Amino acid sequence: MSFQGKKLINNPNDVVTEFIEGLVETFPGFQYLDGFPEVKVVLRADVSSATYDKVAVISGGGSGHEPAHAGFVGEGMLTAAICGDGIRAVTGSMGCLLIVKNYTGDRLNFGLAAEQAKSEGYKVEIVIVGDDCALPPPRGIAGRRGLAGTILVHKVAGAAAAACLSLADVAAEAKHASELVGTMGVALSVCTLPGLVTSDRLGPGKMELGLGIHGEPGAAVVDLQHVDVVVSHVLNQILSPETNYVPITRGSRVVLMINGLGATPAMELMIAAGKAVPKLQLEHGLAVDRVYTGSFMTSLDMAGFSISIMKADQSILHRLDAATKAPYWPVGVDGNRPPAKIPVPLPPSRLTKSEESLSRPLQLNQQGRILEVAIEAAANAIMDLTDSLNEWDSKVGDGDCGSTMSRRCSSSSRGHEKALSSERCSRNSE
Amino acid sequence: MSFQGKKLINNPNDVVTEFIEGLVETFPGFQYLDGFPEVKVVLRADVSSATYDKVAVISGGGSGHEPAHAGFVGEGMLTAAICGDGIRAVTGSMGCLLIVKNYTGDRLNFGLAAEQAKSEGYKVEIVIVGDDCALPPPRGIAGRRGLAGTILVHKVAGAAAAACLSLADVAAEAKHASELVGTMGVALSVCTLPGLVTSDRLGPGKMELGLGIHGEPGAAVVDLQHVDVVVSHVLNQILSPETNYVPITRGSRVVLMINGLGATPAMELMIAAGKAVPKLQLEHGLAVDRVYTGSFMTSLDMAGFSISIMKADQSILHRLDAATKAPYWPVGVDGNRPPAKIPVPLPPSRLTKSEESLSRPLQLNQQGRILEVAIEAAANAIMDLTDSLNEWDSKVGDGDCGSTMSRRCSSSSRGHEKALSSERCSRNSE
Repeated sequence: MSFQGKKLINNPNDVVTEFIEGLVETFPGFQYLDGFPEVKVVLRADVSSATYDKVAVISGGGSGHEPAHAGFVGEGMLTAAICGDGIRAVTGSMGCLLIVKNYTGDRLNFGLAAEQAKSEGYKVEIVIVGDDCALPPPRGIAGRRGLAGTILVHKVAGAAAAACLSLADVAAEAKHASELVGTMGVALSVCTLPGLVTSDRLGPGKMELGLGIHGEPGAAVVDLQHVDVVVSHVLNQILSPETNYVPITRGSRVVLMINGLGATPAMELMIAAGKAVPKLQLEHGLAVDRVYTGSFMTSLDMAGFSISIMKADQSILHRLDAATKAPYWPVGVDGNRPPAKIPVPLPPSRLTKSEESLSRPLQLNQQGRILEVAIEAAANAIMDLTDSLNEWDSKVGDGDCGSTMSRRCSSSSRGHEKALSSERCSRNSE
Repeated sequence: MSFQGKKLINNPNDVVTEFIEGLVETFPGFQYLDGFPEVKVVLRADVSSATYDKVAVISGGGSGHEPAHAGFVGEGMLTAAICGDGIRAVTGSMGCLLIVKNYTGDRLNFGLAAEQAKSEGYKVEIVIVGDDCALPPPRGIAGRRGLAGTILVHKVAGAAAAACLSLADVAAEAKHASELVGTMGVALSVCTLPGLVTSDRLGPGKMELGLGIHGEPGAAVVDLQHVDVVVSHVLNQILSPETNYVPITRGSRVVLMINGLGATPAMELMIAAGKAVPKLQLEHGLAVDRVYTGSFMTSLDMAGFSISIMKADQSILHRLDAATKAPYWPVGVDGNRPPAKIPVPLPPSRLTKSEESLSRPLQLNQQGRILEVAIEAAANAIMDLTDSLNEWDSKVGDGDCGSTMSRRCSSSSRGHEKALSSERCSRNSE
């Protein structure tokens, strides 16, 4: 099945230019070079090459992965996103580190830019990130693809540069970080390229494992599974002792990134995060120090996510926790975890009163028996109407009236005191 | 057309519970009450009702609008998300403000919770937000729906509470803010409810204007337009002097929120932001002080966005700019805007050299003429192959090889010096 994807854009040729315009309108700490729109470089508004006294950290590549990489520009992370003339705009005497995802085109273009900048007298180092764990070794001449783990490498490098390290030391930390991270993606749909017809190679009921961020086909197309199963599979693949892609063994400390590919709701990403943490702890014997959940490196509007696991020592955590003004780096993630639950406060008189009034008498009188039968019959009638109620509700509302009613009736038919208790607790679920 | 939407979840009945588990794993500053999963309350881990000395600000409502509202819990914004027992857990002697979106169910549930809490001796105020501008007045007994403008009201109220204002004053600021904001939404698709079959009432090539966040039908279904046209229409509707929904007139200062509905890429949201700002400035005569672009209040995986415009004075800006630890409140947005562009630095010798070597001689010699014809023929041949190249590329990559080549060839056939210049500037667009 092919279809013309729907997009809220103008001319498809202008999407990158217009994206950068909106980004700079949104974040006053950002500027673009005035060769714009032909020169597409987003950089920190407070940095000028004449006076900048820290190592510049630059990344970039193709578009369609927003907020990567422009959204990670800011003090403590990237100095500029995208390339070519960007090196000259932000590179001071301390030099410049280019962080490049391992794709042939990116390596070619950044390699050329680096050579040109070096020939002009700039100090430039390149670190290549290839964190993909979807395919077994050997990966041939092209090597492993660069995926969302690159964002963690950006953060480590940006924090090292902000701490005034030398170019050699910033590059060494970035390279070390790139060797500690593994990533694998899962998709429910292919992405819609602006102005092009989309080929839905997946079809209904299918998902793709191990895809890349450019819409290239993945390692396998399989039946859609519960996210529990998907998360388990991806974690096993990344941590597989056969591929040995990441140096993580039982007892290691790790950080976890759940990265949405563009069209996956925050709800689904958080569900995956909530499942991945206990699996890493209990099944893989790892301590999970940080969890980054969000859409950091996307494939436009692809539905799905990738999971990245990075081995974390105190030095890596220190870099990841360091302050940054990059607008898309998540906040509120650092620090130690308190117990997740706290006790429900109840009003002093309520506990005993409700337990009394809500418990079912051991012996029902005649009226009680009639009432119980009537409640059960009403609940069953509503449950039989689930699909119709959903359909009618979908004409005017959110289409879940039948499911909501049915859920409550199902506890009702298991005993009316259950129904009352469920009603009290979920009365706000509409 | 109806279809079973694909989701990365487990049992559809567990999505809210599992979302909260992932949220708390991701953000160590969050806790949930241990009546969980029956009691679904996310609250600040550092707040206890016994000792809390500021007004608690609570919001909530149904699920499916993530990151709203739980993602806005944090010092300086919401004290807790969702309701009922949440009031008791975080409300200290200063009392509690409930911020409620204007939907019948939400008003009913929050109203009951407030009455119950009051009967237990808590000080409670409610502010209702109805910012929808899609339908003309009069809006009858139900009034205007609560949409993404609610997030701005949360921020104003949270900042006022953090500044130690009394409950009456926090409520007054929240009510004032709610009267200054107008919102309207646009959708390209309906949302997919977990476990239910989705009715695609829109169909290809259509968009819906003025929808609500629960998937209820909008004010009109129209042909898909360029986003420029969509943004203009929405701004005109919100600012319409006929409805007079917001007290904004030429010369006012405003803040702008572009809110993604769940499946709209950051790229498209930024494009809309980049278009809305100059339209507000030039066509409506408004000063735009802040721009908030992101997915703040969604409808699961609905494609589309809403635009909110809030009248801003120094007091409102002060509250919006105040520090908060709420993880989904955008960072890097405050402060004054520097000029967006800075000059492209060029290497000293390059400017003149390139201009000499790249300009086309006025008079071509015989070989030059042959070369020019050959370049044009090659460019035309490649442009004729655009669709085939895209199709072949889509088998192994991102399916844009034809479009990319064609764009460059099209400048090439307008003069080879253009082609060279374009190649130099966009060589990193792969």
